[in-house]
Amino acid sequence: MAGDGDTPGVAEPIGEAECLRLISAGGVGRIAYTGRFGPTVVPVNYALHEGTIVFRTGQHSPMGEDLRTGIENAESKVAFEIDEISPATREGWSILVQGGAHPVDSETERASVMQAGVEPWAGGEKELFVRVVPTRITGRRIRRTGPPAAG
Amino acid sequence: MAGDGDTPGVAEPIGEAECLRLISAGGVGRIAYTGRFGPTVVPVNYALHEGTIVFRTGQHSPMGEDLRTGIENAESKVAFEIDEISPATREGWSILVQGGAHPVDSETERASVMQAGVEPWAGGEKELFVRVVPTRITGRRIRRTGPPAAG
Repeated sequence: MAGDGDTPGVAEPIGEAECLRLISAGGVGRIAYTGRFGPTVVPVNYALHEGTIVFRTGQHSPMGEDLRTGIENAESKVAFEIDEISPATREGWSILVQGGAHPVDSETERASVMQAGVEPWAGGEKELFVRVVPTRITGRRIRRTGPPAAG
Repeated sequence: MAGDGDTPGVAEPIGEAECLRLISAGGVGRIAYTGRFGPTVVPVNYALHEGTIVFRTGQHSPMGEDLRTGIENAESKVAFEIDEISPATREGWSILVQGGAHPVDSETERASVMQAGVEPWAGGEKELFVRVVPTRITGRRIRRTGPPAAG
């Protein structure tokens, strides 16, 4: 009987400007990339800096190495997802930033992204700054219009 | 000064049995796959059913089509991430399930996964059940041992 009696949520697209506003405060997002074991998703702390997503990882962490390997000569395509969902009502929003991941190597760029003040979520040395330069930003908001599901 | 003065979180790996226990209640997780615009991450409602992740999507939604295209003859490699993170303390856990995505096409299998009772998160017709059969389950827990960061 799955789905029977459930109040369906209404999904509304969110425009790019509103997407950027919603994610401008930073916090926890999820970076998705193709790693050594296939698609991989990991939560990281991020900041929005000059229209790009900035986060930190370890230079020699699996993620750092996977992202670097992928971008030796070409940028690595990644996705970055940020959402705010109420577990109780299942209402909320989700933003998807798709684009290329760039390790920050030059001192000038590093000084710039340091201003974003992004702290690593987990411990350990997180000396590699990664920028995600968006090529596509989409979002959707889910609202429930009726009473919550009985079951 | 990013990172200076921050209390680093301690990341502890979570064993597979504990990972399965943590995600057994179902709820909202994030499915990552390679779609028409590259890596894609979308929140979905899921249930754990017979050791597999079950969620619903639209037969003709972009995700339904992307997953189906990828698995015409071979299974599509995907990642499924579930986490519980406190925005205030940034403590919490994150589980990553990697494996193959299988659309549920047979009536017998459909009847079986229907028992999982997984409701779609967003609205619209979500008549395609997808199972993620894990090949790798990993998790980590972040604890902070000191006082929160001053800045």
